[in-house]
Amino acid sequence: MIANAQMVETQIERFAALPLDCGSVLTPVDIAFETYGELNANRSNAILITHAFSGDAHAAGIHRVSGRPGWWDNMIGPGKAFDTDRYCVICSNILGGCAGTTGPSSIDPATGQPFAMTFPVITVPDIVRLQKMLIDRIGISRLLAVAGGSMGGMQALEWSVAYPEMVAAVIPIATTHRHSAQQIAFNEVGRQAIMADPDWDRGSYYLQRPPARGLAVARMVGHITYMSDSSMKEKFGRRLNGREALTREAAGFDFSAEFEVESYLRYRGSQFVDRFDANSYLYITKAMDYFDLSYGRGSLPAALERAEARFLLVSFSSDWLYPPYQSEEIVRALRSRNRDVAYCELSSQYGHDAFLLEVEEQTELVRGFLNSTYQRVTR
Amino acid sequence: MIANAQMVETQIERFAALPLDCGSVLTPVDIAFETYGELNANRSNAILITHAFSGDAHAAGIHRVSGRPGWWDNMIGPGKAFDTDRYCVICSNILGGCAGTTGPSSIDPATGQPFAMTFPVITVPDIVRLQKMLIDRIGISRLLAVAGGSMGGMQALEWSVAYPEMVAAVIPIATTHRHSAQQIAFNEVGRQAIMADPDWDRGSYYLQRPPARGLAVARMVGHITYMSDSSMKEKFGRRLNGREALTREAAGFDFSAEFEVESYLRYRGSQFVDRFDANSYLYITKAMDYFDLSYGRGSLPAALERAEARFLLVSFSSDWLYPPYQSEEIVRALRSRNRDVAYCELSSQYGHDAFLLEVEEQTELVRGFLNSTYQRVTR
Repeated sequence: MIANAQMVETQIERFAALPLDCGSVLTPVDIAFETYGELNANRSNAILITHAFSGDAHAAGIHRVSGRPGWWDNMIGPGKAFDTDRYCVICSNILGGCAGTTGPSSIDPATGQPFAMTFPVITVPDIVRLQKMLIDRIGISRLLAVAGGSMGGMQALEWSVAYPEMVAAVIPIATTHRHSAQQIAFNEVGRQAIMADPDWDRGSYYLQRPPARGLAVARMVGHITYMSDSSMKEKFGRRLNGREALTREAAGFDFSAEFEVESYLRYRGSQFVDRFDANSYLYITKAMDYFDLSYGRGSLPAALERAEARFLLVSFSSDWLYPPYQSEEIVRALRSRNRDVAYCELSSQYGHDAFLLEVEEQTELVRGFLNSTYQRVTR
Repeated sequence: MIANAQMVETQIERFAALPLDCGSVLTPVDIAFETYGELNANRSNAILITHAFSGDAHAAGIHRVSGRPGWWDNMIGPGKAFDTDRYCVICSNILGGCAGTTGPSSIDPATGQPFAMTFPVITVPDIVRLQKMLIDRIGISRLLAVAGGSMGGMQALEWSVAYPEMVAAVIPIATTHRHSAQQIAFNEVGRQAIMADPDWDRGSYYLQRPPARGLAVARMVGHITYMSDSSMKEKFGRRLNGREALTREAAGFDFSAEFEVESYLRYRGSQFVDRFDANSYLYITKAMDYFDLSYGRGSLPAALERAEARFLLVSFSSDWLYPPYQSEEIVRALRSRNRDVAYCELSSQYGHDAFLLEVEEQTELVRGFLNSTYQRVTR
């Protein structure tokens, strides 16, 4: 593994100005990105990977500084679904994030202090606009594909209708064209957990301690929604830490983490605090909630009629956070406007996490779809 | 309505001692309860209603002090499902609660201070043991029925196997014989939200301000799990406060509650703080997580083999917190031991809340079941 592993580095590009949907302009703005594989001579083999809520630019390979594998390394690399022997894969950290791209933790040049809550509210179209500036600068006039899961799928959808001439194919996975009330509700609980933490201090915590407890609670809620009832049952059941089953004698009868699922959530919550900025949590979840592909475009079918790309949509049977019916709405809208769309609901026990875990079947789908797209583009 | 409404009062009974599963003994212990309807001469028409997590003894009628209707008033009363013209209905606040029955906010006679986190950890069997003492004191040797939804259903199940000779019928609604990992996980998030609030102060907040923010966040999570995706869609959709639909111009682009679902959750969260004790939240959710009807009884079928009662189980199609499959597990176990069981999965959009909202079909089921049980008992 290590012998084959690609060592990668994160690069930063700076742009003088990024106009935002809210009317503000960010000056300047940085975007962190990584590339895997080589751009071919006519620059026709570039694929943009768009990351989910808590992702970053490090999608594949082993990071030269952290030594960590990328978040979608099982899907991106030589011979993998996104085959870096054939394609040049690009992944950037989203606007508003906290891993190199300008976000609320960045220094506001006007004050010399972190933006914190003076950072403008951003939208998914804003995020995509910055990605488009990066793709322009790299000198790519048309992407072979834009692909991403969850919030990454929202970005892929936005690309297809905002810059139709620049995308040959889009692969929105486990996503939606707009959040339901339930999805907004889960995000709102996370935001409230952060804002309820006194250490949040209206976002101005950068020189003090961060709202670690609130952010951890928010992340715990997130993790429940990423798994399924049955995957949690399989992974934890009612097992106690270090014991096979709950016995009343063995139970500590206190409020420490007795059940394995409790320890897991506490661990994932506290771990998240070390790598994620609480204000980014607020801004990015808000961008997800605002997102509505049909906004300003009449209707969902009318919005998607603008698209020129081929579509491959994927959903997962046990994903209750982004249920298959939400992908099917998009598929129906595309078909109603005679757009080229393939759709597959994959059977999986892993809930929303499936887009990160179900490698084999996704690889088969993605590889074939990219291959036929590439043949069309290059013939 | 008001003319027909029954004015009711909450009564308190005190017992010298209640031994608990954890080995402690509470001395003394109070239990708050209400009764509706008259006990008949041979005391054969008594029904015990067991409440859900955040319920109290005030299940029906109009409370003489608060003026509020009971939490199951649509199901209990003259001519209703639990017909108080025929039956004597009793409801008590659970042990560990905060509405009259001894719980963590009660004064520990040993110290003269509230128990807070020195309150012993309690179990569903403890809760039922105290209810049984109340029923004994009232002078009822056999209940016509024990009925309840959600955590109330756990109590009904426990009654059926702990005191089989004392129960002619049980009606567990939208419940389970033990929590899954997902159910434990949601409870744990609520507990962590409370314990993350500095105002919780390890439970010793009674002379200061309570952990209102943490408790509100916990309640918000709860409310999402009580509703269904489709009921939230119907109730809120993506509507903004005071506006029909989200338009980018209208959106405030800030972190106030813009979507109706956000305001609703914030309101329900803050409202809960006024009526519920955060430490009771911890103790009661822990009792739910510990509950396992099969514990110490070999297996679920072996546990239920002890039961002598008739069973009516009810679940709701859109209830994803206590999904129908959990009721079906109980039904299968009962049938495997030739127990008398009727089961109905009612079609509903209301999710777990359905047991409080779907009055008509529940009434039909419950009325017929109680009627035939009463005829058997009195013939």
